Amino acid sequence: QLKTTTTAAASRDFTEDRLWLNGEEADVGHPRLQACLREVRRLARKRRGGGAEDAAPLSLSYKIHIATENNFPTAAGLASSAAGYACLVSALARLYGVEGELSEVARRGSGSACRSMFGGFVQWQRGERPDGRDSLAHQVAPETHWPELRVLVLVVSGEKKQVGSTAGMQTSVATSPLLKHRAEAVVPERLALMIRHIRERDFEGFGQLAMQDSNQFHATCLDTFPPIFYLNDLSRHIIALAHRFNAHHGRTKVAYTFDAGPNAVIFTLADTVAEFVEVVRRSFPPAANGDQ
Amino acid sequence: QLKTTTTAAASRDFTEDRLWLNGEEADVGHPRLQACLREVRRLARKRRGGGAEDAAPLSLSYKIHIATENNFPTAAGLASSAAGYACLVSALARLYGVEGELSEVARRGSGSACRSMFGGFVQWQRGERPDGRDSLAHQVAPETHWPELRVLVLVVSGEKKQVGSTAGMQTSVATSPLLKHRAEAVVPERLALMIRHIRERDFEGFGQLAMQDSNQFHATCLDTFPPIFYLNDLSRHIIALAHRFNAHHGRTKVAYTFDAGPNAVIFTLADTVAEFVEVVRRSFPPAANGDQ
Repeated sequence: QLKTTTTAAASRDFTEDRLWLNGEEADVGHPRLQACLREVRRLARKRRGGGAEDAAPLSLSYKIHIATENNFPTAAGLASSAAGYACLVSALARLYGVEGELSEVARRGSGSACRSMFGGFVQWQRGERPDGRDSLAHQVAPETHWPELRVLVLVVSGEKKQVGSTAGMQTSVATSPLLKHRAEAVVPERLALMIRHIRERDFEGFGQLAMQDSNQFHATCLDTFPPIFYLNDLSRHIIALAHRFNAHHGRTKVAYTFDAGPNAVIFTLADTVAEFVEVVRRSFPPAANGDQ
Repeated sequence: QLKTTTTAAASRDFTEDRLWLNGEEADVGHPRLQACLREVRRLARKRRGGGAEDAAPLSLSYKIHIATENNFPTAAGLASSAAGYACLVSALARLYGVEGELSEVARRGSGSACRSMFGGFVQWQRGERPDGRDSLAHQVAPETHWPELRVLVLVVSGEKKQVGSTAGMQTSVATSPLLKHRAEAVVPERLALMIRHIRERDFEGFGQLAMQDSNQFHATCLDTFPPIFYLNDLSRHIIALAHRFNAHHGRTKVAYTFDAGPNAVIFTLADTVAEFVEVVRRSFPPAANGDQ
């Protein structure tokens, strides 16, 4: 299972803030990380000032050590920064005894991290305020809602992507006429439809829309100037394989979605996992995999 | 130079209509070919009826032999059908002594063939009539207008494309929300702008717009469901190379456009051809070329 593990410790013996990413020391001064740290400490201060006195509250002035590890490729379009910042904010909140609405704090680390603070099916609301304070996530349905749903990740490449998701999205907003139309005219309708498919556990509708929306996201990347390509030839073979698999069965039994990278996220139901994995193994034998 | 050569002959000695494509006999009954033949004969009949009597007019009832050859890959997104039908209609028109507006006849063979009846810079007008009769091409500027302009074709793959252009476009019209927006809101403005850039011989504007519009066309292919991919990893390397080349020079010195296939059409000016070809040779050495 894909997992991010983050440990945070504060001590009077620490002489400086430090950060380790996957075992290697990294820059603790990163503005987004500092924004999360500042915000959690502010919430802790507010809470204590409000009268909730701990027996021995951890000093907010102690230096902090943070260690975080992914058991999957980092910066390869597998939402490592969303997982990382969600995990960081949870760890910091527990350390400082902060509870409650942390989605807004996580968003300061990475936009999509606000979604990762919840389990199950989560909607990230766009919000209206220019400062983004109302751009928050909320749970549409808990993880127990659709127990047969399975998510497979086909790692096409563990290489770091050339264009980061945030920078890429900013260029798209500035240069893609199709993205503007997508955001204004297509997404609101699709979002409502997707929530309905999830509520009704309608895999056919859910899967079709997931694929269409993944393709449209990558279309707007191509319409960005200069164009951004996250999918490669192997990603496209997986897409074709999914469509052939569904055509063979006469209905949507698997669906794909690709985030900002070439790696495929496959949605399917429990009764289809073994068959589809076998088809993938036959189409992409280990030897060929090693060449990619 | 890329070229299509078509020969048409009619004789009382021929016992049936026959067709050869690149030396191999092919189906002369193809509806689009028959439509062109029927239309040219109709125009010939009309012309003769109108009083223009040849000394010995070629009988319209003679069987016909047609041979056509491309010196470049067929059905690989290099507009072989546009060239083929334009050439066929020209050959038939000469055979039957028909003159005048043949763009509408060529359109019956392949939509884009209506454009190929002219030299230089040509606009294909969408038209308003449901039967397509006013969907015609006209010349924006003759080939002498911009003598420094050069067109290079980088053949990435000579393989036949999996999805034909016409079938692909029909699926896109039926399934892509972005194509609808592109056709209604983006193309009319870009078309006017492109004509201005051509009239002013503004390579910077011409090149930028050519690249943006190529990318947007391929974006709508990706937004088609199931998605259509014409570009491959090598096409994308060429795109990245063009952007790096321009960034190095601080201005748009080369531009790319991709039709319904992975092969790159490069626009540049005469003074840049040698330098860019050298860069391509270094980036894609013959050995690596052979592997693709």
